Amino acid sequence: MKKINIGLIGFGNIGSGVIKILRNKKSFLTKKTGLNINIKKICDQDIISKRNVGVDKRLLTRDPKEILEDPQIDILVELIGGIHPAKEFISEALKNGKNVVTANKALLALHGQELFTEAIDKGKNIYFEASVGAGIPIIKSLREGLVANKFKSILGIVNGTSNYILSSMSKNGRTFNEALKEAKKKGFAEKNPALDIEGMDSAHKLILLTYLCFGRLVNMKDVFVEGISRISLADVDYAKELGFEIKLLAIAQKEGEDLEVRVHPTLIPKSHLLASVDGIFNAIYVESDLAGDLLFYGPGAGQLSAASAVVSDIVELTQDIKAGLFRPMMNIVRDKTVKRLRKIDESFSRYYIRFTALDKPGVLARISGILAKFCISIASVTQKEKNRTEFVPIVMLIHEAKEKDLRAALSMIDRLDAIKEKSVAIRMEEV
Amino acid sequence: MKKINIGLIGFGNIGSGVIKILRNKKSFLTKKTGLNINIKKICDQDIISKRNVGVDKRLLTRDPKEILEDPQIDILVELIGGIHPAKEFISEALKNGKNVVTANKALLALHGQELFTEAIDKGKNIYFEASVGAGIPIIKSLREGLVANKFKSILGIVNGTSNYILSSMSKNGRTFNEALKEAKKKGFAEKNPALDIEGMDSAHKLILLTYLCFGRLVNMKDVFVEGISRISLADVDYAKELGFEIKLLAIAQKEGEDLEVRVHPTLIPKSHLLASVDGIFNAIYVESDLAGDLLFYGPGAGQLSAASAVVSDIVELTQDIKAGLFRPMMNIVRDKTVKRLRKIDESFSRYYIRFTALDKPGVLARISGILAKFCISIASVTQKEKNRTEFVPIVMLIHEAKEKDLRAALSMIDRLDAIKEKSVAIRMEEV
Repeated sequence: MKKINIGLIGFGNIGSGVIKILRNKKSFLTKKTGLNINIKKICDQDIISKRNVGVDKRLLTRDPKEILEDPQIDILVELIGGIHPAKEFISEALKNGKNVVTANKALLALHGQELFTEAIDKGKNIYFEASVGAGIPIIKSLREGLVANKFKSILGIVNGTSNYILSSMSKNGRTFNEALKEAKKKGFAEKNPALDIEGMDSAHKLILLTYLCFGRLVNMKDVFVEGISRISLADVDYAKELGFEIKLLAIAQKEGEDLEVRVHPTLIPKSHLLASVDGIFNAIYVESDLAGDLLFYGPGAGQLSAASAVVSDIVELTQDIKAGLFRPMMNIVRDKTVKRLRKIDESFSRYYIRFTALDKPGVLARISGILAKFCISIASVTQKEKNRTEFVPIVMLIHEAKEKDLRAALSMIDRLDAIKEKSVAIRMEEV
Repeated sequence: MKKINIGLIGFGNIGSGVIKILRNKKSFLTKKTGLNINIKKICDQDIISKRNVGVDKRLLTRDPKEILEDPQIDILVELIGGIHPAKEFISEALKNGKNVVTANKALLALHGQELFTEAIDKGKNIYFEASVGAGIPIIKSLREGLVANKFKSILGIVNGTSNYILSSMSKNGRTFNEALKEAKKKGFAEKNPALDIEGMDSAHKLILLTYLCFGRLVNMKDVFVEGISRISLADVDYAKELGFEIKLLAIAQKEGEDLEVRVHPTLIPKSHLLASVDGIFNAIYVESDLAGDLLFYGPGAGQLSAASAVVSDIVELTQDIKAGLFRPMMNIVRDKTVKRLRKIDESFSRYYIRFTALDKPGVLARISGILAKFCISIASVTQKEKNRTEFVPIVMLIHEAKEKDLRAALSMIDRLDAIKEKSVAIRMEEV
């Protein structure tokens, strides 16, 4: 049985999970696949700290060259994350004739074009199942299982931290800050959680999902990104009263010949499956032309969950290498019916809006007057009883409006004397 | 570009969907995969009736030999369904060196061992993605995406007809018969719906899922099967009041060293994702050791949805054939921690029970006395107000009990003078 050698760079959380699986399940995997996957080298800056898996010390090195320049290593598994030096490592590995497995969504989202092109030039593949949705086999499903499909949209809850916070606000009545603190305590949020809660991590993953569904690797600047840090408990509660949950959604959606690519907090009806996705769970909802509407759900984080996906990529590549199979297009093709990316200003959406107004006659008339001027039509209004403060919240759901018009209207409304806080507007999605 | 020739036997609903996709999306698929898939022959007893896709008449034949014996045909796509002559066709195709794609769950469930062994002997593969969950890539996910995982359980809503009926009862207050009639009218139920509503179709699919998760192709006689035809609207309503939905679940579950394989109506808490799967949708919930709890959801029926899965198998096989890749074990391995199949009598479950009793003092005491004798512990009791009849329904939820004990207790209770109808017992699943 031909041995396929892998070299791992990045012996951190996911990395040690991968080693654990490949070691503990070696005979299981060999029996299942007929493959012999051998860990030849493990590289990390820190080769001293104890991991939760034992390895032969001779496998460890601090020098990435021992992997990148070893002609016997067939597959580089890159799990250090971040842009540099991960990019250089992958590039070097491809140059030296290795296939690559990575979980590095930020790197592929920002420099994927360059790396994928390099890979194709060298006749090698970069696999990245663990970069979106951890152990959920969403990338394989889009690339292979749904190979015959064209897509209308993909909507994902793809950041476990944000979803944990929003769930905790909705289920346990926590404020944003309380929920964030709780998430940190449980290890579900980084010390600096900005990448997660400001939506950047979701945007990176969305860029990859958009690439898989529509064949375009869009630039980060073309993705509208709004995080959850300004979502208040009040809004979560009002949304619930109206029959909605607020979720941070990553959305790529065809509208005629346009494609919208955006990440933002979104009201979704409680009856929709995505509304029931709680805690650190992720879910990706896909609208396809043949297979219909599909949902893929599972834990969005976790050492073994992500490692499960990395190992499935390693198995796949090992099989391909043995058979001499190279998948140049990785089943990705540009959807030519998409002519352009739609700017957020030009996009249409329904909205949930909360105004904070003085409790005086005529305020509602002035607000609705301004909305009418911009042809924005109100679907429902609830004026809440004021509690403790002298201001009353006015909660509105509006029919579909152009983002630009809505922003202009809100900016005019916010200048009214009777309005006491910047108004809150959250998009609604009708899936 | 090497052309791979396919021959289709069965130009019915799914078959014409497959031809439609391969024709209309030919260049799309070639661009995506670099493959050239050619329809060489289509065989059906009826080559006269109009399908919703146009084909060159010269492709059509009534003689299966024109496919089975054509050495230029690489892949047989079998879509006639049923056991004979589908089995003989597949067997003949394997003998003649062809790979096989089929959606035939009944055939594989009943004769899979023989056919899979034949395939391995010949170095060929049988792919069957469309046999469970139509377009949901569940089989690929279990075989490849989750290749490193061991499974604790798999629970599926895998029969669209039954789920449509149960949803319609729950959402629209239909009786079983009304809902069945409605399903027939909409084309969601066959004229003779027994295979669907009595749970056999679910059992066939469950046998395949069990094979994928635990590496055992169990016999039909080892699967406990109970359908939905005795579920009354009253039970659906009482379950709802108690916070549950009734779904027909196909379950394979490890309990210690035992494996339980069973299909039956089941109460699941409304908060569980499976409870929100309505209409003809299917969903498969998997508990895995690495990737955690996953759910795969999508339409469980439909021409193009099933055809989408068939085409993904064709693409996969075409790629394999070109590369000379043969997957002998198809990533399936026997789970050796499973020592035996547990008989339904020995299984434990919580239950929902409805007694129909005379409204007389002492009845509840006698019922609970008998339950106590069998050490069956009551979790909650609701005695419903009688409406119109002279009998009152008594609804109980009981703690976990052994099936055998419960059946003995119920049979004793049903002999009481005060009990006026056979008692209803529905299992509860705590997922």
